[in-house]
Amino acid sequence: MLPLKNDLFLRALKCERVERTPVWIMRQAGRYLPEYRETRKKAGDFMSLCRSPEMATEVTLQPLDRFDLDAAILFSDILTIPDAMGLGLYFEEGEGPKFKRPLDNRKKIGELRVPEVHTELGYVFEAVRSIKKALAGRVPLIGFSGSPWTLASYMVEGQSSRDFKRVKGLIYDAPEDAHQLLDVLSETVYLYLKAQVEAGADAVQIFDTWGGQLAYDAYHDFSLKYMEQILKQLASDPVTQNVPTILFTKGGAVWLDSLANSGASALGFDWTVSFDRVLNKIPANMAFQGNLDPAILRCQDHVIQAEADRVLNSVGGRPGHIFNLGHGITPDIRPEAVSVLLARIAETSTNIRSQ
Amino acid sequence: MLPLKNDLFLRALKCERVERTPVWIMRQAGRYLPEYRETRKKAGDFMSLCRSPEMATEVTLQPLDRFDLDAAILFSDILTIPDAMGLGLYFEEGEGPKFKRPLDNRKKIGELRVPEVHTELGYVFEAVRSIKKALAGRVPLIGFSGSPWTLASYMVEGQSSRDFKRVKGLIYDAPEDAHQLLDVLSETVYLYLKAQVEAGADAVQIFDTWGGQLAYDAYHDFSLKYMEQILKQLASDPVTQNVPTILFTKGGAVWLDSLANSGASALGFDWTVSFDRVLNKIPANMAFQGNLDPAILRCQDHVIQAEADRVLNSVGGRPGHIFNLGHGITPDIRPEAVSVLLARIAETSTNIRSQ
Repeated sequence: MLPLKNDLFLRALKCERVERTPVWIMRQAGRYLPEYRETRKKAGDFMSLCRSPEMATEVTLQPLDRFDLDAAILFSDILTIPDAMGLGLYFEEGEGPKFKRPLDNRKKIGELRVPEVHTELGYVFEAVRSIKKALAGRVPLIGFSGSPWTLASYMVEGQSSRDFKRVKGLIYDAPEDAHQLLDVLSETVYLYLKAQVEAGADAVQIFDTWGGQLAYDAYHDFSLKYMEQILKQLASDPVTQNVPTILFTKGGAVWLDSLANSGASALGFDWTVSFDRVLNKIPANMAFQGNLDPAILRCQDHVIQAEADRVLNSVGGRPGHIFNLGHGITPDIRPEAVSVLLARIAETSTNIRSQ
Repeated sequence: MLPLKNDLFLRALKCERVERTPVWIMRQAGRYLPEYRETRKKAGDFMSLCRSPEMATEVTLQPLDRFDLDAAILFSDILTIPDAMGLGLYFEEGEGPKFKRPLDNRKKIGELRVPEVHTELGYVFEAVRSIKKALAGRVPLIGFSGSPWTLASYMVEGQSSRDFKRVKGLIYDAPEDAHQLLDVLSETVYLYLKAQVEAGADAVQIFDTWGGQLAYDAYHDFSLKYMEQILKQLASDPVTQNVPTILFTKGGAVWLDSLANSGASALGFDWTVSFDRVLNKIPANMAFQGNLDPAILRCQDHVIQAEADRVLNSVGGRPGHIFNLGHGITPDIRPEAVSVLLARIAETSTNIRSQ
């Protein structure tokens, strides 16, 4: 492995002093980039793009060639695991992900097994190896997975949901089945993240997109518990024990006290919190990531600059901040808006961090 | 006015001792009731139902005839105000509300005026008077309005939105225009709620359905500020000063410290919080409402009972609790599930409150 030329992101994850706040953007390789849309067209459908290590490498590096970002993130989908379990992931134009064979009855849950990740998901690890090679130490590479609860939600609903009817029915009406499903998913996520690390990922993020839809206690029992289990396995495995972990529950601030004890290296936050109100509730050695509202990127340059400053000022000089949006960047954003954002983060955070 | 036969709800709002926890259900008059669907069919479209005081009275009373509820809520829509402002509210089957003439340019915002509520929204106050007469003191009647921010969101987006692109663009790119719009809406909401009280409403609730979509500071500046303005006007107006107010921001727990100082008589909560974790942060004389996940009502009876107990136990004996769901009841719920819920609330809360 080549030594990293830019290790700001990893240093911030360890809460070390940095001269500038590192930044990456959720969905930074995506439809807002014309070069991405070109590759996407070439690939045909979305999953073919994910399944081709060459094309996944190409799109992973596109935002790095355009912008001064401090980390790359593996280009893939959060639903590769259910797909590997045989649910048949597909995408319809203009709609979210869907499954051909959703978990629409309990028998199917009982039959679910931890897949042989190295074969079933081998294309992902090949992509990681290919991306690492192409990066040649420019910046660290982030691996990722959906959280067990988020995966289960899609698997049981069969697609995106507004009210999570079916999966909430499962956890309340048949909690044993729900736990069985979440156990299989947790074991798989652990093996999946471990294999990404073996292939070269420098850090991993768990995306708990739908945890914030749960009732207070249900979040603990059906989402956080399983993420903690994964974090624990990663921490006690020699292969992964030194790899930083980022846990991001959208809308998770309600569970801040619990998240602070989750064992993650860093927590991701959305824009509904102000860092100056929450940082006193997390340990000094825990890093934190976020949290600009992606809607800001649709605004005028001076607004982007002012709102970037607002986030940075809410952190002040505290070590451990990784700048990001509070959720993924959307397809309608001008790429120039990202340049404006990154320039401002560099300028303001250098000023703050040099004081 | 006839004296109330059941004043549990109003006593709980004043944080007085009650022998049983009062309960009402957001959207309790709605599509889950076959008798509602009958009246709705008779009415033709949804707004005709809202505009007919006779039919609005009929559907407002339907859930009270079926269940032991402790309050009635005016049957109406949260978007009557924008409709009265000329935006042309309509509903398409299976979709949310839409406007024929959304606020899609700034000139339209400048031209917006506070409507003559007594004429433009006279049908609402007529419905209140008619409902009060029909209730004949059985239970108190709740009046309501959408919050200025929630109304503005629909008006600017033209319909329900996933990312609130346009209205967030407005508040960040043209904050003066946004404040002008929210000022006109706040004044209108105040006059609208006041007229509902004059017509007989015993309490009023402000529904801030979309406040929780805002960034931490933006919520204060563009949603809470205007709700506080309304609460202040109501509190200093001799007509409304003794009428209890309920403020409900979906996803609002992040702003609990601010909400605790809002001046509302009661705060509504969704299911992402547990009362035992939040009640120490609100004043002893502030009531609180909620917070069962509506998804629970799709589950087996023993689940409904256990989860009702969980909410009641999270409150314990503290005065000021009004049981409700954390959001509106959905059309797919069996009416029998509501009976199960209400019986359990009565039983458990009587046990807790008699200790």
